[in-house]
Amino acid sequence: MSGDARHSPSLAGLRDGDAFDGFYIVKESSFQTAVNGKNYIRMIVADASAQVMANIWDANRDLFALCPSGSIVKIQGVSETYKGKQQIRIGRFRPAHESEVDPDDFLPRTKRDVGAMRDEVLALADSLADADYGRMAAAFFRDTALMNAFARSPAARDLHHAFLGGLLEHTLNVARMADAFAGTARVDRDLLVLGALLHDIGKTEELSAALVIDYTDKGKLLGHLHIGAEMIADRARTLPDFPREKLDLLRHMILSHHGRYEYGSPVLPKIPEAFALHHLDNLDAKVETSNRLLDAMIDPEKSWTDFSRALETQLYRSGGRDGGTRDA
Amino acid sequence: MSGDARHSPSLAGLRDGDAFDGFYIVKESSFQTAVNGKNYIRMIVADASAQVMANIWDANRDLFALCPSGSIVKIQGVSETYKGKQQIRIGRFRPAHESEVDPDDFLPRTKRDVGAMRDEVLALADSLADADYGRMAAAFFRDTALMNAFARSPAARDLHHAFLGGLLEHTLNVARMADAFAGTARVDRDLLVLGALLHDIGKTEELSAALVIDYTDKGKLLGHLHIGAEMIADRARTLPDFPREKLDLLRHMILSHHGRYEYGSPVLPKIPEAFALHHLDNLDAKVETSNRLLDAMIDPEKSWTDFSRALETQLYRSGGRDGGTRDA
Amino acid sequence: MSGDARHSPSLAGLRDGDAFDGFYIVKESSFQTAVNGKNYIRMIVADASAQVMANIWDANRDLFALCPSGSIVKIQGVSETYKGKQQIRIGRFRPAHESEVDPDDFLPRTKRDVGAMRDEVLALADSLADADYGRMAAAFFRDTALMNAFARSPAARDLHHAFLGGLLEHTLNVARMADAFAGTARVDRDLLVLGALLHDIGKTEELSAALVIDYTDKGKLLGHLHIGAEMIADRARTLPDFPREKLDLLRHMILSHHGRYEYGSPVLPKIPEAFALHHLDNLDAKVETSNRLLDAMIDPEKSWTDFSRALETQLYRSGGRDGGTRDA
Amino acid sequence: MSGDARHSPSLAGLRDGDAFDGFYIVKESSFQTAVNGKNYIRMIVADASAQVMANIWDANRDLFALCPSGSIVKIQGVSETYKGKQQIRIGRFRPAHESEVDPDDFLPRTKRDVGAMRDEVLALADSLADADYGRMAAAFFRDTALMNAFARSPAARDLHHAFLGGLLEHTLNVARMADAFAGTARVDRDLLVLGALLHDIGKTEELSAALVIDYTDKGKLLGHLHIGAEMIADRARTLPDFPREKLDLLRHMILSHHGRYEYGSPVLPKIPEAFALHHLDNLDAKVETSNRLLDAMIDPEKSWTDFSRALETQLYRSGGRDGGTRDA
Amino acid sequence: MSGDARHSPSLAGLRDGDAFDGFYIVKESSFQTAVNGKNYIRMIVADASAQVMANIWDANRDLFALCPSGSIVKIQGVSETYKGKQQIRIGRFRPAHESEVDPDDFLPRTKRDVGAMRDEVLALADSLADADYGRMAAAFFRDTALMNAFARSPAARDLHHAFLGGLLEHTLNVARMADAFAGTARVDRDLLVLGALLHDIGKTEELSAALVIDYTDKGKLLGHLHIGAEMIADRARTLPDFPREKLDLLRHMILSHHGRYEYGSPVLPKIPEAFALHHLDNLDAKVETSNRLLDAMIDPEKSWTDFSRALETQLYRSGGRDGGTRDA
Amino acid sequence: MSGDARHSPSLAGLRDGDAFDGFYIVKESSFQTAVNGKNYIRMIVADASAQVMANIWDANRDLFALCPSGSIVKIQGVSETYKGKQQIRIGRFRPAHESEVDPDDFLPRTKRDVGAMRDEVLALADSLADADYGRMAAAFFRDTALMNAFARSPAARDLHHAFLGGLLEHTLNVARMADAFAGTARVDRDLLVLGALLHDIGKTEELSAALVIDYTDKGKLLGHLHIGAEMIADRARTLPDFPREKLDLLRHMILSHHGRYEYGSPVLPKIPEAFALHHLDNLDAKVETSNRLLDAMIDPEKSWTDFSRALETQLYRSGGRDGGTRDA
Repeated sequence: MSGDARHSPSLAGLRDGDAFDGFYIVKESSFQTAVNGKNYIRMIVADASAQVMANIWDANRDLFALCPSGSIVKIQGVSETYKGKQQIRIGRFRPAHESEVDPDDFLPRTKRDVGAMRDEVLALADSLADADYGRMAAAFFRDTALMNAFARSPAARDLHHAFLGGLLEHTLNVARMADAFAGTARVDRDLLVLGALLHDIGKTEELSAALVIDYTDKGKLLGHLHIGAEMIADRARTLPDFPREKLDLLRHMILSHHGRYEYGSPVLPKIPEAFALHHLDNLDAKVETSNRLLDAMIDPEKSWTDFSRALETQLYRSGGRDGGTRDA
Repeated sequence: MSGDARHSPSLAGLRDGDAFDGFYIVKESSFQTAVNGKNYIRMIVADASAQVMANIWDANRDLFALCPSGSIVKIQGVSETYKGKQQIRIGRFRPAHESEVDPDDFLPRTKRDVGAMRDEVLALADSLADADYGRMAAAFFRDTALMNAFARSPAARDLHHAFLGGLLEHTLNVARMADAFAGTARVDRDLLVLGALLHDIGKTEELSAALVIDYTDKGKLLGHLHIGAEMIADRARTLPDFPREKLDLLRHMILSHHGRYEYGSPVLPKIPEAFALHHLDNLDAKVETSNRLLDAMIDPEKSWTDFSRALETQLYRSGGRDGGTRDA
Repeated sequence: MSGDARHSPSLAGLRDGDAFDGFYIVKESSFQTAVNGKNYIRMIVADASAQVMANIWDANRDLFALCPSGSIVKIQGVSETYKGKQQIRIGRFRPAHESEVDPDDFLPRTKRDVGAMRDEVLALADSLADADYGRMAAAFFRDTALMNAFARSPAARDLHHAFLGGLLEHTLNVARMADAFAGTARVDRDLLVLGALLHDIGKTEELSAALVIDYTDKGKLLGHLHIGAEMIADRARTLPDFPREKLDLLRHMILSHHGRYEYGSPVLPKIPEAFALHHLDNLDAKVETSNRLLDAMIDPEKSWTDFSRALETQLYRSGGRDGGTRDA
Repeated sequence: MSGDARHSPSLAGLRDGDAFDGFYIVKESSFQTAVNGKNYIRMIVADASAQVMANIWDANRDLFALCPSGSIVKIQGVSETYKGKQQIRIGRFRPAHESEVDPDDFLPRTKRDVGAMRDEVLALADSLADADYGRMAAAFFRDTALMNAFARSPAARDLHHAFLGGLLEHTLNVARMADAFAGTARVDRDLLVLGALLHDIGKTEELSAALVIDYTDKGKLLGHLHIGAEMIADRARTLPDFPREKLDLLRHMILSHHGRYEYGSPVLPKIPEAFALHHLDNLDAKVETSNRLLDAMIDPEKSWTDFSRALETQLYRSGGRDGGTRDA
Repeated sequence: MSGDARHSPSLAGLRDGDAFDGFYIVKESSFQTAVNGKNYIRMIVADASAQVMANIWDANRDLFALCPSGSIVKIQGVSETYKGKQQIRIGRFRPAHESEVDPDDFLPRTKRDVGAMRDEVLALADSLADADYGRMAAAFFRDTALMNAFARSPAARDLHHAFLGGLLEHTLNVARMADAFAGTARVDRDLLVLGALLHDIGKTEELSAALVIDYTDKGKLLGHLHIGAEMIADRARTLPDFPREKLDLLRHMILSHHGRYEYGSPVLPKIPEAFALHHLDNLDAKVETSNRLLDAMIDPEKSWTDFSRALETQLYRSGGRDGGTRDA
Repeated sequence: MSGDARHSPSLAGLRDGDAFDGFYIVKESSFQTAVNGKNYIRMIVADASAQVMANIWDANRDLFALCPSGSIVKIQGVSETYKGKQQIRIGRFRPAHESEVDPDDFLPRTKRDVGAMRDEVLALADSLADADYGRMAAAFFRDTALMNAFARSPAARDLHHAFLGGLLEHTLNVARMADAFAGTARVDRDLLVLGALLHDIGKTEELSAALVIDYTDKGKLLGHLHIGAEMIADRARTLPDFPREKLDLLRHMILSHHGRYEYGSPVLPKIPEAFALHHLDNLDAKVETSNRLLDAMIDPEKSWTDFSRALETQLYRSGGRDGGTRDA
C-alpha cells in the first residue's frame, strides 16, 4: 500500500522547507493557548528514524481529540527550523486506519539481515559438542515462537542496540567473539558459546516493544538476569536427566555476566567462562554505544559529542572517521 | 547412650588442668616434626560450643591415619593454656562408631524452643487474609519435608544466626516485626509478612550443615536470593491460577531484600513492602550479630570487642550489660 | 473568619475553568514583558496543598510592588490548563492583612491527631524504668516550650515527613517500633526507646517552618546530629549527677543513627541499640517516602512513578494498592 | 634518680649481644610451655623508643605473677637476634616501685621544645584581631589545666604524631601554615587561625595516654570532632554575649575539617576557611606520616617502605634523602 | 582606539534601561519565528565580565548572516529585564573589523599584576639550590615563548582560576605556600618548589583560550598530567646528564598531584613532597573556587549559594564577609 | 652443563622424602637460635617452579655468610613435610659460580613457543594498512633490542602472566582478538590492533626480571601507562611528519586502556577503539588469572579455590575441568 509507514518520508530526512505527506506516531500531544489568546496543538511525532516537535495552529478541542498520545496519524505538513531544531507545521491531518499501518514500522530496527543472523545463531547452537548443552540450545532456538520473539526484541530501551532486532544482533556479536576466543584460550567452548547465546535471553520478557520500547512490570521487578536464569531452569525441566552441575553453571553464566554487584549481578563470576562472557558482552555493548553516539552527531565541524552519562565521558570523532578505514 | 556428644564435656566449659573424656569432631589434622626431631599430631577439635587446638605427642603415622579431618573421635585428654589460649593435650583417643554419635550434636544450635518457633511460623502463615498469599504460604510451610529442612537450617556460615535452627529463629524474628509494623504503617500486611517468612528460604539450598556449616556449590554459584525466588515460582506452578502480579511482587520481595546492589540484590526495592523487609531483615541481623560478638568477649575487664569486619567497627560493652536490663 | 486560608479553596482541588477567591502565599514573583510588548506579572502561588503558576496580564510596576515573593495575597482568579499543567489567570488581587491569616495555614501538616500523638510520646517517655533515662526524657518532653516546637516541626524539607507535625509523627512511629522490638530482642529497652524519642530532636533547630520549610543557617553548618547530641548534653547539665556513661551512650545513639559515614554519621553504631535505631529510623522513613511518592501519582493508568533520587529507583503501584488492604 | 626510665638504656639502641639494666613497661605477658616441657614467660616490653619480645626461661607461675601486663619492671638482660628481629633474654627482673618511675617516660614524646611550642601557640592566640575570637582563644589557651593537657596529648594512637606532645606539634604546624596562607589569600584570618588552633582540641578527651596511648570510651562513642565542637560551645557559655554566628562558624570549622563524609565529618566544608583548614590539616598530617614511615626503614639498601594502609601506597626513599636537603 | 572592547561598557555593569554602544562577542546566534509569525534573531553576547541574552526584533536572514556564532560585533542596544534576568534589545549592530578589536579583551583575566607575578615566579625558579632542578626551572621559565604562553593561560575552563593569567596566579599561590611550608617541614624544598611551579604546566597545552576557554583535543585525549610530565622529559633531553632519578621524581610530582585515582592521577603520591604538593594545590584551588562562587552571589539577602557540583555542597556567606577582614 | 638450573630437580616436583641435588636461588636467609640454644639457618629457596622453606641445622655465622638473600647456591638436601607444607632439610651446600648458572633459569617462563609468538606479533605489525601506523609498529617491533626485551618481559609481578615471556603472550592474545573483533565491528582496525600490540609496552620499563620479578623505581613512580605513551612519543620523533592526531589517538589508547580512573587510567576511553582495547585486555587477563588460580589447586577433592583478592571472589573448579573440553 502506497501510504504505509515504510513509504512515508523519513522524518530524519526532511530539510528546512520540505513539504511532505505520511504516517507518523503521536508520542505526546497537548492543547495550548498562545500569548495572543489563540489555541494550538503541540505534539511530538515520530517514526523509526527520529522524533520531532509539531504544531497545529488555530486548533480547537475537537481536532485535539483526534490525535491522542499513542495514536498513529496521517499528516500533511512542512518542515521548519525553530531555535536551531527541526519542527513541523502541520497543515492537514487525520487518524490512521488500523489496516493502513503496522506498528513495527514506527520503531527503529536493525540494519542487518535478520534471516542471516538467525541462521548464524542456529549454526552456533548446532555446533555445540556437548550433548547436554546442545539439547539446551535446541530447546531455546529450535522453539519457533521463542525464536521469533528473540529475533524481534530490542536489547535495551535507551542504551546499546535499542531497536527491533537489537537483541539478536548483540547476541550474535557476543557469541561470534566467544567462539573466536574459545579457539585460542583455555575455556570450555560449549559453555561459553551457549552462555553467550543465552546471556540476555531474559530481555525477551524484560522489554516490550509495542509502539514504544519500554521495560515490562515484570522486567523492572525481577530484572533480565533473574528471568533469563529462570527460563533456563524451566527448559531444563523438559530435558530428561539434565545434569545438575551444568544447569548451575549455565545459570551462573547468566547471573554473573554483569560482572560486578553495582551493575546488578547478584553473584560475581567464579569460572573463567563467566569472566570471558562479562568482558565479551561489554566489548560489544560499549563499542556499539560509542559508535551510535558518534553517528548521531549532526554538526560536521564538531569533534566531540555531548557528555554521555552511560559512558561517563564525551566521545571524540577523529578526522579519519567518516572517510576512513573505520567504515569499511 | 552415655558416650554421645550431648553428654561429652563442653569444650567451652573446660578450665586449665581439667581432665575429660568425650566425643569431638576433628576439624583439621596434620602430622608434624618438632625441632627435637620427634613426631606429633596437631589437630583442631570442636564440638557445638567451641573449637580448640589439640596435640598428640610422640605420635606415629599409624595413629595419624586414625584421625583424618572431618572424622569424629573419642578423646581422653587434659586442658592446658598455651600462649594465652586454651589447648588440649590428648592422652588416648579412638575413632567413634557411627552408632555412637549424631553429627548434628557437633554443630551449634538455637537456644530457643524449635517446636514453639515452628508453631508461631505456622500461625503467621495461617493468618494471611489474602487467599493467594495464603495458598503460597501453605505450599511452603505445610510441606513437612521442607519445613523440617527449614527448621534445621542455619542462617549463615559465619555471620548472624550461624547455627542449626538459625534460619527459623531469624525468619520468625523478622516476620514478627513485620506483623507489628503492618499494624501501624500503610503497607500490604499479607505481602510483607509472607515476604518476611520466605525472604531467606533459598538458604535451605544455599547452605549445608553436615558436620560443618558451609555454602553449597549451587549456593555460591547462584546465591540464595535467586534460589529463593525460583522456589516460589516452582510452588506457584502447583497452585492453579496463581495471579501473575502477586507472583512477581513476591519474587521482587526476595530479590530486593538486600536493599543495595553492592549487597547482592539484582534489583532495588520498588514497593513500600520491599523497603520495609530490607530494614526489618537488617534490624534483626545486625542486632543478633552485635549481641553474639559481645557475648563472645572473654576478658571481663575489656569494654571493647576486636574490630569486626562484618560490622565495620568495634563494639562497646557498657557497664550495665551483664547485670542490666538487656538480659531480661 | 470566613476569609482565612483554611476556608480558601484548595489549589489542589481546582479544576479547569473553576473561578475562585481566597488567600494564597506568593512563592515567587517577577515582572515580565511579552513578545507583543505588553507587561505582565508571573507568579508562583501556593497553599498547603500545592503550588501553581499564576499570571496577571496587562500589569504595571505599581501592581507588581504589591505582591513581592514571600507575601500573602487575596486572589480572585480562574484555573486554566497550560502545556498540560494547571495555571491561574488572576483577575483581582490585594495583599492580605496580617490579622486575616495564619502563616501555618499555608504549610502542609500531618493528617494525624497531634494531641493523641503528643500523649503517646509522653506515655513512652514516662514508661522508662531506668531513673536516669526517665529524668532525661522528662527534661525534654515535660518542657512545654520544647514540646510545642517539637510537635510543630517538620522532619525534613523535601524528603520524608516534610510537613508540620512530621517530626512528631516520624518520632512516634520509630519509638513505637523500638518498643515492640525491645519486647522480643536482647536490647536495653530504655536506651533504645529514649534514643528513638530523641534521635531527630536536633531537627527542631535544624529546620525552620515560617511560610516555607527550610534549613536554618545553624542547621546547615552543624547538622541535626551534632545539634541533637548537644541538646542532650545541655539538659544533662541540669540533672544532678547524671551518669557519664549513660550520657555518652545516649549521644552515641544520636550521632550514629544515620548508620554510615556517607549518610553523615561521624561515628558508626557500636552498640546493639544503635544498630536497631538506625534500621528502625530507615524503616519508617523509607516506607513513608515511598507511600508519599505513590500517593502523588496523578495519572491513574500509570503503574510506575518517576525516578526518585532519594530512593535511587522508580516505584511500582500495584493493581491492589487503591482498593486493597494497604489503605485500611 | 639513677634508675629511672630516662636513664635506662634505650631499647631501640641495643645491639646484638648488648647486656643492659633498666626500667621497662610490660605490654603483654604470658606463661608458656615449650616443646621440651619446660615453662617460660614470654613478654613484650617497651620504652619510649621501641617495643621488643623478651623471654624468661625456666620460669614458674610465681615469677609470672610479678610481671602482669601493664606493669613496670626493672630488667637485667641481653639483647639477641631471633628470626631477624631483636629479642631480649631476661636474666633477672623485679617490679618497679611507684616512686622509681614516671609513666610518661615510657611513651614516645615530641623531639621539639614543648615550652617554645606553647609560647608560639599563645602568641598566635594573642594575635587575633577579632575581639570575640580572641576571647575564645584565651578561654582555651590561657586555661592552664587545659593547656597542660593539650601540650601533653598525642595527636593519634597509631598514625601521625602518635606521641606525647604530638597534638601540640601538629596544631602548631597547622596554625603556622594557616597564618602564612591568610597573608596571601582572601580568608578571614582570625577564623582560620583559631580554627586551626582548635581543630583537634577534642583529642584531649578522645585519647588517653596513661602507659599506652589509646582511645577513651567517650572518644570512640562520640569522636573528637563532636567533642571538640562541644568544648567550644561550653566555653562560649562562659563568654558574655558571644555572637551566635561566630560560634556556629567556629564549630563548623571543627566538624567539617575532615573534609568528606567518609573521613568522619558530619558536615562538608561550606566556607573558604573550612576548605583551607581541611587541606592544611592534611598537609601536615600526610607529610609527617610519610616522613615517619621513611624514618622507620631499617635496611639501608631498600628504597621502598612496606605498603601503608593509611597512605594506600608504598613510599619511596630517594637516594638524596639521608644526606640531602631534606634533613636540614 | 575609542571603540575597542576595553572601552566598551561592561555587560555586568549595565542596569535596567541603560542604553549603550560597544563591541561584544557573539557566543550563539539563531534565527527564529515568533508566535505572531515575525522573525527575530536570538543571541548570546558576551564580554570579559558576563554573557547575556540579546534579541534583534523584525530581523531577516541577511541580517542573521552578519552575526554568526564566534564573531565580534558592534552593538547599540538597551538593557532590559526579562523573567528576572538581564537581556538586551539590540537597536543597531555591525560586524567588527579585525583591526578594531583584540580577542583577548573578550575573555576574563586575572586582576593581579601579571608582570609582578612573572617576576615572582622567576625569583622562585632562581632560588633553587640544587643545580639540576635549577637547570630544569630555567629551561621552562627562561624560555620566553613558553613563559608568555604560561602567563596567558587559564587554569581551567569552568572551575578555579578560569581566566587569562589564571594558571600563573594559581601556580604562584601554590609555589609560595610550598616555599613557606618547606621552611618548617622536613621536605626537599627544591623538589617541592619546582614541583609546584611545574605542576600544571601541561595546561598550557590542555587548554586553548581563543575567544573562548576550552579544552584542546589533545588535552581531552591525554590530560594535563601526562602532557606536563612529558614536557619535563622533553626539556630533560636538552640538559646534559640530567640525573635519571631527579627526572623520575619530578615527573612523579606531576603525575601524582591529583592525589587519588578517581581524580585522575595514574599513580598515588609516594614521597612526602608529593603529598605536600597535592594538598597545597587543593588548598589554593578550593579556596579560590569558594571565593569565586561567593563573589558571584547577586541577591544581597541570601546567605547561601546554589549547590555547587564541584564542591559537593552549598556555600555560606557570613554576615562579616563583605565588610570584614576577608576582603583586605 | 649438567649442573645448571634447567637440569636441577624441580622444587614443585619433590615428594616427601626425596633426596636431591641442584641449583636454587636464595630468596630470604636468616640466622636463628632454636629454643634448645642451637643455631640454624632458615631460608626460602626457589626455582622457576616454586619457592620452599629450607633449614640448615647446627649452622654457624661463617656458613650463613655464604648464602645471602639473592644468591644462587648448589644444594644437597631432602624434602620433608612440616605443618602440612613442603620443607627442605639441607645437607650440604655451596655458592654457585657465575659460569654455572643463568639467572633466567630461576624465573618461571611462558610454556608457549617464543619464536612463533614473535613471528605472529611481527605479522600483525606488518599487516597494518595505514602507512603511519605501520611505520610506528615497525619502529617498535623491528627494533631488535626492544623486541628482545619485550619478548622476555613478564606482564606482571603477581597477577596475570607473571613470568618471562608473559608480556609477549598476553600482548599476542589481545592483539589476536583485536584483529578478530575488527573483522566484524565498526572500528579502525589499524588503530585497534596497533593499540593492542603496544598497550603494555611500558611494562618493559616498569618491571625488572633479574632473579626476581619486581617493579622498577621508575615503574612505581610513573606507571606503565605513562611510560608506554611516552615511548610512543619518543619513537614518533624519529618518524618524519608523523601526524599529530594519530600520535594523540595512539597515546590515548595506551593511557585509557585500564578503563576507569580507579584502575589507574588518567583519562577514560573516548573512542570506540579504546573501549574495545580495555575489554579485550581484561578478557585475556581475567581468564588467564582464573585459569592460573585453578591450576594451582592441589587438593583434588576441593572444588573451590581460596578467596582471590585480585578477582574479589573464590573460583569454582567444575567436575569437567580436568578431563573435559577445557584442556584441549
